[in-house]
Amino acid sequence: MSITASESVELKEKDILHSSRLGVFSSDAAEYTASIDIDVKLLSSVVAINSAHVIMLAERKILDRKIAGQILNALKQIPNDFEMKAELEDVHMNVEDYVISKIGNDSGGMMNLGKSRNDQVATAIRMALREDLILLAKSIVKLEKSLLVQSGKYSASVMPGYTHLQRGQPVTLGHHLLAHFDSLDRDFSRLVDCYLRTNLSPIGAGALSSTGFDIDRDRAAELLGFDSVLENSLDAVSSRDFATEAIYLCTQTMTDLSRLAEEIILWTTREFSFAEISDEFASTSSMMPQKKNAIVPEIFRAKTSQVLGDLTAAMGLMKSLPLSYNLDLQELTRNLWSAMDKAIVSISILSDVISELKFSVDNMMEAVKSDEFLFATELADYLVEKHHLSFREAHNRVGKLVRHVASNNSGRGQITTASPKVLSEILGVTIPAEELKLIFDPKLALQRRSAVGSPNPRLVKEAVKKRRESISKHEATINSLEDGISESRELLSSAANSIEKLGKGTGSLGR
Amino acid sequence: MSITASESVELKEKDILHSSRLGVFSSDAAEYTASIDIDVKLLSSVVAINSAHVIMLAERKILDRKIAGQILNALKQIPNDFEMKAELEDVHMNVEDYVISKIGNDSGGMMNLGKSRNDQVATAIRMALREDLILLAKSIVKLEKSLLVQSGKYSASVMPGYTHLQRGQPVTLGHHLLAHFDSLDRDFSRLVDCYLRTNLSPIGAGALSSTGFDIDRDRAAELLGFDSVLENSLDAVSSRDFATEAIYLCTQTMTDLSRLAEEIILWTTREFSFAEISDEFASTSSMMPQKKNAIVPEIFRAKTSQVLGDLTAAMGLMKSLPLSYNLDLQELTRNLWSAMDKAIVSISILSDVISELKFSVDNMMEAVKSDEFLFATELADYLVEKHHLSFREAHNRVGKLVRHVASNNSGRGQITTASPKVLSEILGVTIPAEELKLIFDPKLALQRRSAVGSPNPRLVKEAVKKRRESISKHEATINSLEDGISESRELLSSAANSIEKLGKGTGSLGR
Amino acid sequence: MSITASESVELKEKDILHSSRLGVFSSDAAEYTASIDIDVKLLSSVVAINSAHVIMLAERKILDRKIAGQILNALKQIPNDFEMKAELEDVHMNVEDYVISKIGNDSGGMMNLGKSRNDQVATAIRMALREDLILLAKSIVKLEKSLLVQSGKYSASVMPGYTHLQRGQPVTLGHHLLAHFDSLDRDFSRLVDCYLRTNLSPIGAGALSSTGFDIDRDRAAELLGFDSVLENSLDAVSSRDFATEAIYLCTQTMTDLSRLAEEIILWTTREFSFAEISDEFASTSSMMPQKKNAIVPEIFRAKTSQVLGDLTAAMGLMKSLPLSYNLDLQELTRNLWSAMDKAIVSISILSDVISELKFSVDNMMEAVKSDEFLFATELADYLVEKHHLSFREAHNRVGKLVRHVASNNSGRGQITTASPKVLSEILGVTIPAEELKLIFDPKLALQRRSAVGSPNPRLVKEAVKKRRESISKHEATINSLEDGISESRELLSSAANSIEKLGKGTGSLGR
Amino acid sequence: MSITASESVELKEKDILHSSRLGVFSSDAAEYTASIDIDVKLLSSVVAINSAHVIMLAERKILDRKIAGQILNALKQIPNDFEMKAELEDVHMNVEDYVISKIGNDSGGMMNLGKSRNDQVATAIRMALREDLILLAKSIVKLEKSLLVQSGKYSASVMPGYTHLQRGQPVTLGHHLLAHFDSLDRDFSRLVDCYLRTNLSPIGAGALSSTGFDIDRDRAAELLGFDSVLENSLDAVSSRDFATEAIYLCTQTMTDLSRLAEEIILWTTREFSFAEISDEFASTSSMMPQKKNAIVPEIFRAKTSQVLGDLTAAMGLMKSLPLSYNLDLQELTRNLWSAMDKAIVSISILSDVISELKFSVDNMMEAVKSDEFLFATELADYLVEKHHLSFREAHNRVGKLVRHVASNNSGRGQITTASPKVLSEILGVTIPAEELKLIFDPKLALQRRSAVGSPNPRLVKEAVKKRRESISKHEATINSLEDGISESRELLSSAANSIEKLGKGTGSLGR
Repeated sequence: MSITASESVELKEKDILHSSRLGVFSSDAAEYTASIDIDVKLLSSVVAINSAHVIMLAERKILDRKIAGQILNALKQIPNDFEMKAELEDVHMNVEDYVISKIGNDSGGMMNLGKSRNDQVATAIRMALREDLILLAKSIVKLEKSLLVQSGKYSASVMPGYTHLQRGQPVTLGHHLLAHFDSLDRDFSRLVDCYLRTNLSPIGAGALSSTGFDIDRDRAAELLGFDSVLENSLDAVSSRDFATEAIYLCTQTMTDLSRLAEEIILWTTREFSFAEISDEFASTSSMMPQKKNAIVPEIFRAKTSQVLGDLTAAMGLMKSLPLSYNLDLQELTRNLWSAMDKAIVSISILSDVISELKFSVDNMMEAVKSDEFLFATELADYLVEKHHLSFREAHNRVGKLVRHVASNNSGRGQITTASPKVLSEILGVTIPAEELKLIFDPKLALQRRSAVGSPNPRLVKEAVKKRRESISKHEATINSLEDGISESRELLSSAANSIEKLGKGTGSLGR
Repeated sequence: MSITASESVELKEKDILHSSRLGVFSSDAAEYTASIDIDVKLLSSVVAINSAHVIMLAERKILDRKIAGQILNALKQIPNDFEMKAELEDVHMNVEDYVISKIGNDSGGMMNLGKSRNDQVATAIRMALREDLILLAKSIVKLEKSLLVQSGKYSASVMPGYTHLQRGQPVTLGHHLLAHFDSLDRDFSRLVDCYLRTNLSPIGAGALSSTGFDIDRDRAAELLGFDSVLENSLDAVSSRDFATEAIYLCTQTMTDLSRLAEEIILWTTREFSFAEISDEFASTSSMMPQKKNAIVPEIFRAKTSQVLGDLTAAMGLMKSLPLSYNLDLQELTRNLWSAMDKAIVSISILSDVISELKFSVDNMMEAVKSDEFLFATELADYLVEKHHLSFREAHNRVGKLVRHVASNNSGRGQITTASPKVLSEILGVTIPAEELKLIFDPKLALQRRSAVGSPNPRLVKEAVKKRRESISKHEATINSLEDGISESRELLSSAANSIEKLGKGTGSLGR
Repeated sequence: MSITASESVELKEKDILHSSRLGVFSSDAAEYTASIDIDVKLLSSVVAINSAHVIMLAERKILDRKIAGQILNALKQIPNDFEMKAELEDVHMNVEDYVISKIGNDSGGMMNLGKSRNDQVATAIRMALREDLILLAKSIVKLEKSLLVQSGKYSASVMPGYTHLQRGQPVTLGHHLLAHFDSLDRDFSRLVDCYLRTNLSPIGAGALSSTGFDIDRDRAAELLGFDSVLENSLDAVSSRDFATEAIYLCTQTMTDLSRLAEEIILWTTREFSFAEISDEFASTSSMMPQKKNAIVPEIFRAKTSQVLGDLTAAMGLMKSLPLSYNLDLQELTRNLWSAMDKAIVSISILSDVISELKFSVDNMMEAVKSDEFLFATELADYLVEKHHLSFREAHNRVGKLVRHVASNNSGRGQITTASPKVLSEILGVTIPAEELKLIFDPKLALQRRSAVGSPNPRLVKEAVKKRRESISKHEATINSLEDGISESRELLSSAANSIEKLGKGTGSLGR
Repeated sequence: MSITASESVELKEKDILHSSRLGVFSSDAAEYTASIDIDVKLLSSVVAINSAHVIMLAERKILDRKIAGQILNALKQIPNDFEMKAELEDVHMNVEDYVISKIGNDSGGMMNLGKSRNDQVATAIRMALREDLILLAKSIVKLEKSLLVQSGKYSASVMPGYTHLQRGQPVTLGHHLLAHFDSLDRDFSRLVDCYLRTNLSPIGAGALSSTGFDIDRDRAAELLGFDSVLENSLDAVSSRDFATEAIYLCTQTMTDLSRLAEEIILWTTREFSFAEISDEFASTSSMMPQKKNAIVPEIFRAKTSQVLGDLTAAMGLMKSLPLSYNLDLQELTRNLWSAMDKAIVSISILSDVISELKFSVDNMMEAVKSDEFLFATELADYLVEKHHLSFREAHNRVGKLVRHVASNNSGRGQITTASPKVLSEILGVTIPAEELKLIFDPKLALQRRSAVGSPNPRLVKEAVKKRRESISKHEATINSLEDGISESRELLSSAANSIEKLGKGTGSLGR
């Protein structure tokens, strides 16, 4: 809703702020410096902050309860689709303009007594970020669940494990997916840390130096659901480390998951053929009719770089800014929402991709079986255990054997195709055929692994179970954060109602 | 304009591409991978490319002229406010869909014969970037003009020159502004280099491997105003170095100018009081009625970091991408336009700020006169010239003198307030009062400077004159680039008319 | 110490690893891929890890105690100035080579049974980072102390507070410095979070898939002072999020403090003259004898950007790396140490700069007194309180007054120099001279501020006191982390002694 | 060589600069702000600059020829292994200190008359960078040659061409390698542009304001081999855009080539098996004896990110720095050399890797033959050409056919295994078996491609030939740049000899 001319007759000039002190603002400059486009996200928080501030002023008797009641009532009427005017610079002045247009300057003009846009915007960003962090937490948990379902399903499915993208040793697919789970789980713990540093209240810090009125910052913080007050007034208006931490969090999480995205791209190539992406997340070519391209993980990969770009931008922007508030900070907010939006959406859709990914356990097993080199370590371990070679000696002998086989079989050779004579000569010991078979058996190799964190199917199953409990805890954490916000909303609403009620019965100026 | 259902009856499925080969595309994935929002910028180029391609196909008799004429006619009808459908993925499929809806699949379905979205999008981005580079060139020249006007006006105005933000030696304001001009002028030369590497034609490279039809890539390039063909088909569809170079160009230019923005912020502080920003580019505070904040240069500074963020994002995105096309490249385009838009607008408004900046030559001169330390080098030079001290000896003696004066006058001392006795003792020579006066005279100090590039007012005036010619050359360059584009548009239009005319008289299939 | 030829006769080849499996390694490639230069930092950790691993193997009876004892004894003999050979690639192979050269391949060749360079290097980096994080914590606490001493000293010293580098309202210097303290204190809390995610043990994860031997990862973790095991073997060898988090921590902390560095540069300009940097941290010019440049904060500023460069490098490097180990990870370590070193040293020296900074409280007070615009908010608040104007009305009237005064006095006007008539006309009320005086009194303005986090001298003193306690807690935290490391060293040493003792009395092979 | 105490008796204080003006410099600060470690690279340039400057001063009769001769003689004696003293801050003061220690302060103290460290360091960095750029140019040409040799060798070898890492259409290996050549060739053109903007002379700009002595900047520039003078004195000492451009150049080139590095990693996996890296550039595992890891391309990939980190650091460092010189600039030089070194070495070794890479043309051809989907576009084109379907219709029908085949053959199906009936039904036309065979023939598909830039073997051969000429031109360019530097060295040497000769016969002071 935009304010029509007739509603704002009390305003002598279009711009309630600019024109008393300064001359006409250039329209190019207005557009260049405007934040209206991103302020939409802050509207509900700005309304809540104004309400909390006015309630506190009335409770402290700094502001007449009747006026407070009028302001609170006007604030309530701001529609969800409130249309903000660009010439009023930002959400703060639009809300003040609306209130004044509703109840007049004598009352509405009191709303900003003892506070400033500087503390207000810092407070509003933190409130909006709280909600974004909760959305991000939910995206993470959603993906964790997808990973866990697949890990459980494939806890015993053998696949080649890689280092340097070269096949190393057999692992289980469930184990591989759990690696991504565990990495993502640390990002969840970072998110909780970040939330705690975000949920602090700057309101009452004023422009930079608080105010000469006897305000109660703790009460305002309580009404807005903050854990406590961000004390120092200069710090409160000029710090954005909570925002750069959130952008870092997005970058870390996206970067961690970009590795999974890359693997999906690799696994779904013809060459790997370990998985097929659902048609839902693939595209074809306008020219080549046969193409099925894993475009969602590609976009994920690209957005990871973009979020890193947001981090670079935000950090570079903060560097060397003298205290306290500078308008540079406004621009940082763009990078914050850009990073949060990208992370929330990307992680959620990656979860869908994982859920729908069709793994080809046959192809994976075939890759393991057709490549005995994957068992070279097992063979060396065998030489240590059975023939008491030192590990390094065993390693060297097996290395020579591999070199021999590889050079004779254009890189695709199988160790067991070497003649028993050659085997004995190079290894220095003779291994019975039936023992060789056991060494090259993938299931046995995995079962031999008994240490915690091994790809042994039994341990993978246990790990999945343990992580299910971890997810439950995360969900409880998210609920508790959401409850904190909900409760503060109820508290604010009921305090506002009290003031409105009291305001109707009295007319004395508080101070 | 959006296509109504009745117009697209020939399309059996909503999506002309996806559904033959693949099943249903997820709407989340469609939104996540869509480029419609940024493709608007490419629309006119995509239409031109389709036209040029079809003309070439007809000229080579690969495509029947009648069909070619129908396609060209349909392309012409695409309205400026063409509303693209998100479910069709991108601008390419929307344009094809429109043409097919107009003239049917038998004719319209021929438009993409022998080309792909991959070569088309690379071509379209280069065409759109050409125009953005011209806009950026104009912004740069605009700012150069503003700087030159002010440099000319203040060619003889004395101000303190700084190193380490400490006063060093007197310079002229005109000279200082010319430093920014010269720096910016190198960015102009970079822009021209970048344009040359941008204006190469990928069209005809197909999806990655060109086409089996006997196309003429040179002809298509000519019709689209390219300097030549970007040959290798894999390179043509998968390289984006022209785009990252453009983003670098924006970053370099903005970074260079962020130093001027910072100086405006410093100069307009109460402490410096060297300049006052026009009210047009300043804001006040919602709480502190006296404030006048130089917000445009602050936003400039912030956007500089954001453009660096775009560069980081784009470079990081390209790293390690195997050939040829990957959808990651689509996202890079966002960073390209983001950087170009920011640079074009920011530099233009900074030009306005400079034009309207009110310099206080009195305050600058007062700063010079009240700070004799600015002439310490002149004093040392005098000792070398008149008293044949070595420079290092002279430097040391003046250093001691400064230390003495500073320690006795709480940092604000004037050298000439030291007693003649002290002066003689520390310097080791006696300087007559009238000579001392000449040493500390700012105008004389500047006139003594005779080397090219000195702050001497006479040399500054000459430099301004020379740079006016440089600007004229830049304008000629810009005109020539614009003419190249205009001429290709006329060529394309006239070739299209020929085909359409011929097409009406014949029906023979070209190949 | 380098190994002489005679000591390593048992090694058949120069390179204990490469030559069995592969042919000759190019010396250019060796140099290009080497990590010896940065591995020095890992040496003591690598020795400790080998010891812990061998102890565990012996305790689990996987390794004969006699051999274990020999290895432990050889490891002990590695000198502090151990000279590593570049041709052996890295610290891991150098240590193994040393042990083998001391006790022969039969014993020494058992050291790497059941572990790999992949898990070992991940473990060693975490151990070295633990110590760097403690050094960083100490640097932070050192700077916090410097800030607190100065805050306490200047808790009542009035200075102009700034927004947009324009004077806003009076604050106290102590309050301003506390803003930096509080910001830095959040970085301390990030450090502790980062430490917890760092202090997890990858050892036992093997190359990627743990090992077929029945190892006890918890025991190895305990012997090395880790809080727990980093479970999943693929995750353990391929994740570096702990390292990127540490680099982020450095970036965040340096970026926060770069704002203080910038302020020191500004404050020590002739124009501000709020402070003088100690000669200890300043330089002069080779040409201009008078110069005194605040070069330490300049370098601090530059290093902040470099640490951000490390973060960009490290994050970009990790993007899209498939699991598990890739050699790219080795290079990340360079950025890790580069960032940690820069942060530790920079913050420590900034602490010295702060300690020695001479503030000119006279100049600061003079700046406040000579600029009545700083009290415009106080005047508006007065109009609200005494004359019941709405705040916005009061703000507008004072804005007009400022505009009037500024335009008549070339920007440096004082409000009280306006005639009483003009004052009354513009403000709409008449303010008695004695009340005006009180409004413009800086001490009173500060005393009026009663809310928590205000620049009120009384509150600043309280805040300083509270933060002293916070520092004590930080010191206790640091001590506790250090104790954890020390205790694990004793545990390791005593366990090694037990094995060595037992080893001397027995010869049975454990497995 | 370090100066012993007895040689520097004329120096009253250890530090020839600091102690006259300022008190004792902190040793921590000295270490923190020192540049000695990177100044080694500048030594020969600094000596040359001092020589050129002194020659010019003598020629202009500003400096007595005898003194000039003494200085030139002393400068000549500076040994290649000159050991610089950290307490003298940097290379500039070390050289001056050396000269003064040799010939006394009366003569040696004249060397810095009319110049400063600020213009000198800017000049020296440009001179050192010139040489690094030439080295980089040579590395690029070396790699271009390697690529060209392999392209020529494999101009007709068929391999699958990829988009989205999915197989698209057949290409030739020579064509694929040429794509990298062409991309790299644009980087060469960027290098030449960068060289032109680098080879400009700041010397004579002084500290910031040139000098009152009547110097000849053009002459100094000529003696140092610069193309011309970098005019504006403030710009000359404070701009580093030439350096950031060079870092960008490294980033762009490395990023372009990181795609080739990634492909080597992919091609050498067991899954692709398209190539084998030479043992020279591979490593094995300490645990897994079979491993052969392509570690050189991995390090290349990592260093690409690090160079981007250098770019971020350098750009961020320059942002918002007020003119003119600030010590931040010194730190930027670290990032410059870091990026140049990494790029020069990395590109050179990648050239070796390419030269030694063993391609498996059999495996590549097998991949093409076993995957008829690669010919889907050919089939669609056939339908257009022979059956006059529109391209979009043909595309859709082939798409359906592929979908059918894929769903019936677990993703690995061959089109020609479908029954003729099914083929006819889905395609709507019947294709004779012999024609089908021709459609799926890779050689024919490539021969059909006649447009410039196609993978047609004939065109690839032509392209290789053309690019050989391009390399010859690059080599001529490099020679010409090297000649320019050599000639200036001779000019400098001969001018120095003239002065020294004249100096011995005269003693008159020039000015």
